[in-house]
Amino acid sequence: MQRAAALVRRGCGPRTPSSWGRSQSSAAAEASAVLKVRPERSRRERILTLESMNPQVKAVEYAVRGPIVLKAGEIELELQRGIKKPFTEVIRANIGDAQAMGQQPITFLRQVMALCTYPNLLDSPSFPEDAKKRARRILQACGGNSLGSYSASQGVNCIREDVAAYITRRDGGVPADPDNIYLTTGASDGISTILKILVSGGGKSRTGQVQSRKCIEDVIHFAWEEKLFLLADEVYQDNVYSPDCRFHSFKKVLYEMGPEYSSNVELASFHSTSKGYMGECGYRGGYMEVINLHPEIKGQLVKLLSVRLCPPVSGQAAMDIVVNPPVAGEESFEQFSREKESVLGNLAKKAKLTEDLFNQVPGIHCNPLQGAMYAFPRIFIPAKAVEAAQAHQMAPDMFYCMKLLEETGICVVPGSGFGQREGTYHFRMTILPPVEKLKTVLQKVKDFHINFLEKYA
Amino acid sequence: MQRAAALVRRGCGPRTPSSWGRSQSSAAAEASAVLKVRPERSRRERILTLESMNPQVKAVEYAVRGPIVLKAGEIELELQRGIKKPFTEVIRANIGDAQAMGQQPITFLRQVMALCTYPNLLDSPSFPEDAKKRARRILQACGGNSLGSYSASQGVNCIREDVAAYITRRDGGVPADPDNIYLTTGASDGISTILKILVSGGGKSRTGQVQSRKCIEDVIHFAWEEKLFLLADEVYQDNVYSPDCRFHSFKKVLYEMGPEYSSNVELASFHSTSKGYMGECGYRGGYMEVINLHPEIKGQLVKLLSVRLCPPVSGQAAMDIVVNPPVAGEESFEQFSREKESVLGNLAKKAKLTEDLFNQVPGIHCNPLQGAMYAFPRIFIPAKAVEAAQAHQMAPDMFYCMKLLEETGICVVPGSGFGQREGTYHFRMTILPPVEKLKTVLQKVKDFHINFLEKYA
Repeated sequence: MQRAAALVRRGCGPRTPSSWGRSQSSAAAEASAVLKVRPERSRRERILTLESMNPQVKAVEYAVRGPIVLKAGEIELELQRGIKKPFTEVIRANIGDAQAMGQQPITFLRQVMALCTYPNLLDSPSFPEDAKKRARRILQACGGNSLGSYSASQGVNCIREDVAAYITRRDGGVPADPDNIYLTTGASDGISTILKILVSGGGKSRTGQVQSRKCIEDVIHFAWEEKLFLLADEVYQDNVYSPDCRFHSFKKVLYEMGPEYSSNVELASFHSTSKGYMGECGYRGGYMEVINLHPEIKGQLVKLLSVRLCPPVSGQAAMDIVVNPPVAGEESFEQFSREKESVLGNLAKKAKLTEDLFNQVPGIHCNPLQGAMYAFPRIFIPAKAVEAAQAHQMAPDMFYCMKLLEETGICVVPGSGFGQREGTYHFRMTILPPVEKLKTVLQKVKDFHINFLEKYA
Repeated sequence: MQRAAALVRRGCGPRTPSSWGRSQSSAAAEASAVLKVRPERSRRERILTLESMNPQVKAVEYAVRGPIVLKAGEIELELQRGIKKPFTEVIRANIGDAQAMGQQPITFLRQVMALCTYPNLLDSPSFPEDAKKRARRILQACGGNSLGSYSASQGVNCIREDVAAYITRRDGGVPADPDNIYLTTGASDGISTILKILVSGGGKSRTGQVQSRKCIEDVIHFAWEEKLFLLADEVYQDNVYSPDCRFHSFKKVLYEMGPEYSSNVELASFHSTSKGYMGECGYRGGYMEVINLHPEIKGQLVKLLSVRLCPPVSGQAAMDIVVNPPVAGEESFEQFSREKESVLGNLAKKAKLTEDLFNQVPGIHCNPLQGAMYAFPRIFIPAKAVEAAQAHQMAPDMFYCMKLLEETGICVVPGSGFGQREGTYHFRMTILPPVEKLKTVLQKVKDFHINFLEKYA
């Protein structure tokens, strides 16, 4: 069944409607009949329905903002309307949204952004010189010296150069070419763009642990052997806080494995302003670096990106500060370092707190949290609860998370959204709430879990 | 042929590669053979090629950023390298990018954005109180009172309420429901989202003229009769400057046509921060309003939007100021009104200038420009030039625009990108350059055209 879409722009001029594409559906023809029977409602069957819509969109599932999050929104509205619950607020521990949980923005980043936004402030003595210098450099690279102009579809040139310089530093000298850098609307936009070009669906992921160098080598070797295109979501590269671990980029490991790998494995790596110690999710800034991409495919990539014109230029400017922060000797370096250490130090403290408390609870096992901002504890779900879930046509971990939300107001994501091993159950929870609040949250999860085990024993 | 994509997130844990999807292509198998023959290059045939990529992406065409714009970029690089041309700069008259052409941002909008970006400025005496009030209201509606938090996928609540109030005012009281408002990443994002749900491709558009109320009625009646889903790109609603015309929204006309239409015709209308007198393209702010959408489809829409988390929150804040500017009695009203009148007055002057000059040139005909920011002149292309174009495997208007770019540095868009009537030729040019520069541009187009006619006579 086809439907025609009429795209009408202001000033379509004297075009005659009869020259447009059109079609009739049998459902719509039936709808006319319905109209005659019930003229008082004056409403026909709609053209766009679950049956007539794009089935591929209908099939989309996204656990992090799925049914649990919709339910959380409903509960918040009920609380606002004064409906009594066993809790007073919903705690959104489903998504890594640092500033929504009270993390303060990094001052330097916001100073540069404010200067770029309202350049009159460049004359203000209350902004440091290094922030002004950064802002001037970014504005000079923007059309009309303004964040309000479109950028090139691939992103502002000088920002792509800064990203390439950052990657080169990060990887100990492995060169990065600005021509291989694409600025994106957050990392999710880059990933979906590459998947569009690849057609096939993406694999699955797990969170909270840092991959060892050996594990990355295995993945690269496997991709080389099986001729796979490799997508590396490396948005947590600044969030490693366990003293025993460090971040290894896929690109660096690829180069260290020698030319057979570094000249052949096609890789796209993603980073964003949303995670890291910056936590600037709302600006939707990001970049991707592509390695060994065929030049013709790079042309196709730019064409595809150009349809959406450009990523938000304010997000591009934020990305520039993430990859190009103050350095020793600059006026803002001390404050910047203090703020960065504070964010990462707090995350490390909360990671330990979470791991310790979860592992005291019978039926919960939590691996050490080494990086990122999530715990992914494995939970035991009793057989009777599995049956109850099936009676509600829910996956057992979805059932568990829905009950947790309804009874405590805590919103987490069922592990089935992340490809957990068959027969095991997990949930994903952020560790972003402030320490005292996180303690309360963990205590509530503990009480809920013990009660859940008793109820379905 | 299939390719498997491995999505590897930081901390994918001890997952074994053997559990992933995989496939082998015959092309890749051949590539291994090539490798044995030429070990010195150590490069296999790539996995992702024009042949193996998503054919739907390959088929994408977007005239506004197509081959002409790529060529313009090449010429700019050549100019930077000191290569002599008959001109010293490329003038990008292909896209409505007001601030890149020197238009100054509206002060009030940037003040509110700077305050939202760096809330320390809320204590500064150099910002007006009404801008501070707007900024506080927006921040209070953001998670953690920060532009750096994700918003709901549909957009920040209070901004959607402001948009609904704006539409209600604009349409003389026809009600708008905030629940039907979706904030988007510019208008293009909203349009592509709706098209994704509809599957079928969009129609075509022409620009520079304002639709009469009668024309809109005809379109709505046609959509009702043929059961079409109506998309109304209304991003130029603030850009009507001809004294003989005014903007009619599709929604208002729909309601005035009575319940048979207003209860049945499914409509999505789009607006953005990019056009209007604001011209804030880089912030990628926008909204869409949907009318008569099935509740189940609204659920699907939010699900689809949620995969990308949320539109840039800075763009959402900019959208709020576009729909909720200073009003009489507020501190910023006078300056705001002066700036707005200046932008629209300048556009009106340049529209007249463009129309008058083009119509003096033999072989160019230009309709009156009543709104938006473009001229869409019809051009005569001689038979010998059509032959020359065919020899270059180009559409005749593409050939014309490519020559115009190469000889004058002026970058415009061939009319074939906008669905011009068969056998006619046009190009689209913005009227955004400052008046003196626009005069030079128009003179150059005139000289080029006369020369082109002589050359191919």
